[in-house]
Amino acid sequence: MYPRKLTRSVISNPDFPVAVTPKGKIRGLYEEDMYIFRGIRYAVAERFHEPRPVEAWEGSKEAIIYGPVSMEMHTPIAHDEYNVPHYHYIQDEDCQYLNVWTKHINEDAKRPVMVWIHGGGYATGSSIELYAYDGHELAEFGDVVVVSLNHRLNCIGYLDLSAYGEEYRYSGNLGQMDILEALRWIRDNIAAFGGDPGNVTIMGQSGGGGKVNCLLQTPSAKGLFHRAVIQSGLFKGEKDMLPETARKLTAEVLEKLGIAPENVKEIEKIPYYKLARAAQEAQSELSYREHMHIMFAPVKDDDFFMGGGLNNSFIEEHKNVPVLVGSVLGEFDQNYNQVYAPGSKNDWDDAQVDALIRKVYKDRADAVIEAMKQAYPKQKLVDCLYVNKATRAASRDYARKRAEEGCAPAWNWMFNLECPLNSGTIPWHNAEEAYMFHNANYLEASYIPGVSERLQDQMTGAWVAFAADGDPNCAGNPVWPAVTEDNGACMIFDRETRLAYHHDDALMEALPERGVMDNNDRRPVTRFGGGPRQSI
Amino acid sequence: MYPRKLTRSVISNPDFPVAVTPKGKIRGLYEEDMYIFRGIRYAVAERFHEPRPVEAWEGSKEAIIYGPVSMEMHTPIAHDEYNVPHYHYIQDEDCQYLNVWTKHINEDAKRPVMVWIHGGGYATGSSIELYAYDGHELAEFGDVVVVSLNHRLNCIGYLDLSAYGEEYRYSGNLGQMDILEALRWIRDNIAAFGGDPGNVTIMGQSGGGGKVNCLLQTPSAKGLFHRAVIQSGLFKGEKDMLPETARKLTAEVLEKLGIAPENVKEIEKIPYYKLARAAQEAQSELSYREHMHIMFAPVKDDDFFMGGGLNNSFIEEHKNVPVLVGSVLGEFDQNYNQVYAPGSKNDWDDAQVDALIRKVYKDRADAVIEAMKQAYPKQKLVDCLYVNKATRAASRDYARKRAEEGCAPAWNWMFNLECPLNSGTIPWHNAEEAYMFHNANYLEASYIPGVSERLQDQMTGAWVAFAADGDPNCAGNPVWPAVTEDNGACMIFDRETRLAYHHDDALMEALPERGVMDNNDRRPVTRFGGGPRQSI
Repeated sequence: MYPRKLTRSVISNPDFPVAVTPKGKIRGLYEEDMYIFRGIRYAVAERFHEPRPVEAWEGSKEAIIYGPVSMEMHTPIAHDEYNVPHYHYIQDEDCQYLNVWTKHINEDAKRPVMVWIHGGGYATGSSIELYAYDGHELAEFGDVVVVSLNHRLNCIGYLDLSAYGEEYRYSGNLGQMDILEALRWIRDNIAAFGGDPGNVTIMGQSGGGGKVNCLLQTPSAKGLFHRAVIQSGLFKGEKDMLPETARKLTAEVLEKLGIAPENVKEIEKIPYYKLARAAQEAQSELSYREHMHIMFAPVKDDDFFMGGGLNNSFIEEHKNVPVLVGSVLGEFDQNYNQVYAPGSKNDWDDAQVDALIRKVYKDRADAVIEAMKQAYPKQKLVDCLYVNKATRAASRDYARKRAEEGCAPAWNWMFNLECPLNSGTIPWHNAEEAYMFHNANYLEASYIPGVSERLQDQMTGAWVAFAADGDPNCAGNPVWPAVTEDNGACMIFDRETRLAYHHDDALMEALPERGVMDNNDRRPVTRFGGGPRQSI
Repeated sequence: MYPRKLTRSVISNPDFPVAVTPKGKIRGLYEEDMYIFRGIRYAVAERFHEPRPVEAWEGSKEAIIYGPVSMEMHTPIAHDEYNVPHYHYIQDEDCQYLNVWTKHINEDAKRPVMVWIHGGGYATGSSIELYAYDGHELAEFGDVVVVSLNHRLNCIGYLDLSAYGEEYRYSGNLGQMDILEALRWIRDNIAAFGGDPGNVTIMGQSGGGGKVNCLLQTPSAKGLFHRAVIQSGLFKGEKDMLPETARKLTAEVLEKLGIAPENVKEIEKIPYYKLARAAQEAQSELSYREHMHIMFAPVKDDDFFMGGGLNNSFIEEHKNVPVLVGSVLGEFDQNYNQVYAPGSKNDWDDAQVDALIRKVYKDRADAVIEAMKQAYPKQKLVDCLYVNKATRAASRDYARKRAEEGCAPAWNWMFNLECPLNSGTIPWHNAEEAYMFHNANYLEASYIPGVSERLQDQMTGAWVAFAADGDPNCAGNPVWPAVTEDNGACMIFDRETRLAYHHDDALMEALPERGVMDNNDRRPVTRFGGGPRQSI
């Protein structure tokens, strides 16, 4: 994705490298011992309709330029470019493209396939949104086939028009259907890229983890994947989008657009930005009226999607899928450290830290301090200000729930490495991606010489081992037992990676409930005005 | 700009690195022995009004995230991402930001300052649009201070409202005024970044070269720069934007917006996308009516801007500025080689090549073949299909015209390296940037082991030597005489860099006149629909 310092010429010639797929030839590029294919179209779709596989073609298609990514409803804001460098790319509703990194383009290779499903809620992001997503190092380190994909998002991917006609029956889950179509493409084509269609791991972070959670609860996805990874994708207190809410939201959008139910087809032709504007207003006004945070998301229709795994029974179809589920110590609770006071947290003196903890945690302060020392005895006490509860507790509980319901093994982890920015910063939402993609050396806010090399070997090693045979245990890491109904096992990836049991139960208990992003008040979210670019 | 493989932790702490400027402290980052400051605001401006310097501030401003780039009127199209990788970034009208790469943050260093002015006509682009623009390697190689800047573009930067009120007197040149304000910021602040405000080189490619051409013809820029580099920025047959045309264009925009002259202030508040839509329509309709290609561009008002140097006398104020001016063998005439036939040009046989040359050049074919052999005896004959005349002839003539008018020396160059894509591709518009920024190792379509290292040392070496003392001669290159009225001297940067005299006069004579982009018919320009995103 990003230019790396090259040692050899990159080859992209008419006859090499070419992958021969069942529907036609695809020409990619060969770079530093890696075959890379960018922007392979995996489906076509009309707005609000289900994706269809591509037709066969003559000659060779070029796949050396990324395909466009989904339209987004909002103008992005560059508030976290340093911690989480983005690759902002060209948007289009026509966005069903995927990318492949592989060391083989012959059918005999049969390497494990690791499929990255991007985050950004169900509203933003892409297969190439973050520099951390570049698949070259992961494919190199693990000798695996890495695939990343775009799909429809927000009001294009999750607007439930099912009340207005049978042709829209699944329109509330089109974003998910795109992903399924990509997984079918992988099943039918990945052998030509050296992959084993019988060994596919889906993985995603944040919204991408949420999508994995949903795919695990999607009966028709059966057989399309074999292991699943959820990274910071589960949140305590989050709720499924119910059909009645989805339909209210849709009705609000149609009303704002002035489209009567009998003229619903007009919504297929309306310019995206008009649609997005109406969708935004509908989201925020309905949220206000219903006293809940309503966003476009997969609809629990109990047909295509059976509701998320935290709140519903796990479905039989995917009980045999092993899961790797975890979170990051800080997540949203800070991006920088100056939320509470100027300067670096590591320079604050004991009295200042104590005062801040008491100010933030009030009558829970003593319990938090005690539990923090117990959970993380080698950690600075000040860090308790940044511990995220919503994601950590949800990940832990999800793994245990899978054990309780008799599913295949689930492993639980945390990523706790303090990063160098600002003389020391607790890991933020997205921070672990640099490590499981083996890209820590490329990311300014993440890299610590000596430490990063070992830790990314440990994390990428575990992810690759899990993709290979459904068990993350591998050389170089402590022994890692699956979560049982009562063992509370968790691998803590840090400067000293360790396996712990029930290490932060008391801390989770002591910390107050709060919204996922409540502490995140330093974000200059209005800097560029927010809202869609065209404020018409 | 792009993540490089790091060998040390990047530092950005509250107290380091901090540059102390006259108006306040600026905190950047320290990466691999380089100080980097991203997104320093150099001015503030209201729409259609002149930029003002920033006010002084207390404490330390952060400069670790790029500032937003100018709004663009069109959705970009990913047709050339492989040859010319882009960094698409967040757009805002509030875009007066610059970036600095330097090895010193003390006043004593006084290094030459090299200021990059981006291309994209006067309509698109940014300081960080292309990966090739990353200043780290150039600053490292040359121990110079590299600055790159954003400024207002298109209908925000060059809409001439001067007929509607004195406050808009210079609004047709606001994009240029932003650049001048950035140069004033450099004059007043660059010492704090180790730069010498008395030794500033402005350089730009394509539209950026055009802007340099304009700055050389801007009397009020006197003293703000001391040397100038124009890369593929001059085109045979291009014309100045005259005040009467600019005013016609503005009247057309106002009419489309339904704004009467007495209500002109309304245009200051209208959403950008409505303005852009009207501006696009006005451009294309007026172009059609006037039988000429009319685009927003600096207005030759004979006050702020005296008209481009190809068509007008050089102004006294900048006759003492040495110039480095050149072009690229292929420019627009191909991005890939399949314009004329499938496969790679280097695999076509002699008969096929001969037939193609005769088809393309008709009764000029024999003369072109003869002149091609004379100009480039070691080059493949097929390459005459891709030689660009409009830019090459203009660069040559510009240098000679400076000699004729008694200006400081001008040096002329070409960049002719065949690049590896498609088994051999003639260098395209932008291809030389990888080499004068010393970034060839990072760019997939450009890098040739052994060849690139030497050639980027030669080119970056010449650029840095020129920045240091106004003469590009340096160790490792052939002796390079300035252009005189009759010597026709040109440095040809290639696998074997050589100095030639009048080498392609006959070829330029033999080639037909044609539009700058006439051969560029393989571009899938309609892939994403063209036009602005919101087609309302």
